[in-house]
Amino acid sequence: MRLGLIGATGHWHSYAAALDRVPGLVLAAVAPAGPEETVGSFDHAPGLSADTRRFEDAEELLDTALLDVVQVAARCDRIPGWTLRCLERGLPVLAEKPLAMDLPTLERLIREAERTGAALVPMHTMRAVPELAAVRRAVRAGAIGEPLLSFSQKSYKWGASRPDWYRSRETFPGLAPWAGIHAFDWLYWILGDVFTEVSGREGASAHPDFPACASQAGFVFTMSNGGVSSVTLDYLRPEGAGSHGDERLRVAGTRGVVELSLAEGRLTLTTATDGPRPVPVRPQLDLFTRLLRSLRGEGPPPIEPIEAGRITEIALKAQQAAETGRAISLEDSPFRRA
Amino acid sequence: MRLGLIGATGHWHSYAAALDRVPGLVLAAVAPAGPEETVGSFDHAPGLSADTRRFEDAEELLDTALLDVVQVAARCDRIPGWTLRCLERGLPVLAEKPLAMDLPTLERLIREAERTGAALVPMHTMRAVPELAAVRRAVRAGAIGEPLLSFSQKSYKWGASRPDWYRSRETFPGLAPWAGIHAFDWLYWILGDVFTEVSGREGASAHPDFPACASQAGFVFTMSNGGVSSVTLDYLRPEGAGSHGDERLRVAGTRGVVELSLAEGRLTLTTATDGPRPVPVRPQLDLFTRLLRSLRGEGPPPIEPIEAGRITEIALKAQQAAETGRAISLEDSPFRRA
Repeated sequence: MRLGLIGATGHWHSYAAALDRVPGLVLAAVAPAGPEETVGSFDHAPGLSADTRRFEDAEELLDTALLDVVQVAARCDRIPGWTLRCLERGLPVLAEKPLAMDLPTLERLIREAERTGAALVPMHTMRAVPELAAVRRAVRAGAIGEPLLSFSQKSYKWGASRPDWYRSRETFPGLAPWAGIHAFDWLYWILGDVFTEVSGREGASAHPDFPACASQAGFVFTMSNGGVSSVTLDYLRPEGAGSHGDERLRVAGTRGVVELSLAEGRLTLTTATDGPRPVPVRPQLDLFTRLLRSLRGEGPPPIEPIEAGRITEIALKAQQAAETGRAISLEDSPFRRA
Repeated sequence: MRLGLIGATGHWHSYAAALDRVPGLVLAAVAPAGPEETVGSFDHAPGLSADTRRFEDAEELLDTALLDVVQVAARCDRIPGWTLRCLERGLPVLAEKPLAMDLPTLERLIREAERTGAALVPMHTMRAVPELAAVRRAVRAGAIGEPLLSFSQKSYKWGASRPDWYRSRETFPGLAPWAGIHAFDWLYWILGDVFTEVSGREGASAHPDFPACASQAGFVFTMSNGGVSSVTLDYLRPEGAGSHGDERLRVAGTRGVVELSLAEGRLTLTTATDGPRPVPVRPQLDLFTRLLRSLRGEGPPPIEPIEAGRITEIALKAQQAAETGRAISLEDSPFRRA
C-alpha cells in the first residue's frame, strides 16, 4: 500500500506504528501542506526511503504519486482543503482534527466522503488508549447501570513557546475543537450520540497574547436521558508535573461509577456491592492500522464519516457556546444516523 | 451562655463540639421546628440536662427561655421563618443552609441581621475541614499564581430512603442550594467574590419519584478575571464506596495546581518547579465554637451576614440556572461589600 503524507505539523508521526503492523505499507510520497512547512521537515520521517518521492506541491503529490491512502497532518486551517482534495479523488484519508473549522465546510467534507465512499478517519487517537477502551467496555456492558453524570478533564502544559498560528481564529479553531475534541470524542464513543445541548465558557487569561487559544474552559452538556456531562480543558498544567497531560474521566450511573486518571494510571469501578476495584485493560490497535486493515477488507473502518462529522460538529458547537455565552442545541444535526 | 435549639433535622448535632470547647455553654431549651418533628426527637440531644426546658412551640421558646444564642436546624422551608424570628429579637443564630429558598426572603433575613446587629452564621461547616482550609491558605498565599480554573465535585450516596420533603419544591430548595451550597461556599471562601455568571443543568433521572432533588447536576461559573469554575453534584455514589461522600476540588492557576480528594485524603500542590507535594494541614475550629467566641468578643464572627447572603444567593441562582436552562448573572447583587 502506498501512503502519501501531506503536512508535517502536530501528530504527523501517527502513521509510524502502521509501518510495522501492515505488511507492504510504504511511505510513497511526502509534501508540505503550506508555505509554513518545507520538504525538509520530512528528512527524518518514519519509513522514509530512497523511493519516497518529495513534492513541493501537495496537489502534484495527489495527481502523480499513485497513492492508496493519505495522511493529512497540517495546520488547522489547511486540513479541510487537503482532505477534500483527497476525498474528491476517492482517496481514503487519516486527517488531523478538527476536520474543519466551520460547519458548512465540515458538511461538505462528510458529504464528499459519503458520495465517493472514501474512508475519512480523523485522528481521534485516544481511542487506542487501553484504559479509555476499558471504560467504554465497562459502561457498554452495563457495569454502572444507566450513565447519568460524567466529568472529563484535559489539562496540558503550555510549554516554553507555541507557534504563531495558535494566536488567531484564522488559523486556530479554538480550545474546544483542538484539545477538547478528544474528550468530546471519548464521550461520544463511550456514551453514544446522546448529547442534546452544550453550554460553555472560556478565557485566555494565562496567555493573552494567544487570544484564539483559551487557557481555561468549562462545558456542560445535557444528555437525552436527563444526564449531565461536564468537561474542563486547560493549558495550566505546571511544568513541574510528571507528564505533559493530565486526562481524567469519571462516569457515574444508576448502579456504579467508573473513574480514570490517565496520568496516574488509576482506573477503578465502584458498584452498589463492591468498593473500588481495577477494570481489566487490553491492548488496542492504533487508528491508522485499523484504517488500513479496513481498506484491505479486514474489518470496518475505525470511525465512519458520519460519526467523524458528528464529533467535529459537537466540538465546533462547544466552541460556539464558549465564545457566544449561549447554550447551543445539538439536536438538529446533519450527522445523525437515520 | 444559654443555647436554644429549634429543630431536630439534618445536622442538628452541629453545636455538640462547642459544648466541650466553650466554658459555661448550656443547652437551655429545645423545641421542634414544625409538626414533622416532636419534642421526643431531642431525647438524646448532646448536653441535654434536667435543666433543659422543652417547648412544644418554638415561638414560646424564643419568648421565655432567656437565650444568648439559637441554633435553627429545621426542614428547609422552615429555616427562614425561625431564623427571622431570632434576628428580630436580636438573637445570634447558627442556621442550617440554605438560609432561604428564595431571594426576597434571603434579602429580608440579611437586612434584619444588619439592622439588629445579630450574628447570622449558616452551617457552612466544611470551612472546618482542615484540608479545605489548607487549599485556601495555599491559594491565598499565591502558591498557584492567579487562579483561572477550578473543578469541584460533591458526590453522595442516596441511601435506602429519603424523607418525603425531598420530593417537592415547596419543602426542598433543589440540589444546588442543598448539597451544592457547600461547594459554592468553598469557592467563595477560597477564591473570593469573583463569580459573574452561572450556567447549569440538572436531572432527577435516578430518583424520578423525588423530582425536586436532582440526582445529577453540572454548573459552569465565570470569574471576573476570565477564569472558569466547574461544579458537578450528584447522588450517584455507589453503596459499595468506602465513604458517604466523595468531595473533590482542583484549582489551577498561572503558576500551579492544588488538588484535593477528601475521600482519599489526598491533597497536593504542583508548581512550575516542583512535582506534586503535600500541603501542610492544620486543625480547624468548628463554626459554632467560633461563633460563640465572637459573641464573647474573642474574635470576629466566622461568617458575616453579607457573605452568608452572597453565598446563598449564588446557590439559589445556580438552581435557577439549572431549572431554566438560562445563564444567570451574578453581577448585580444586594450582598456585595461596598
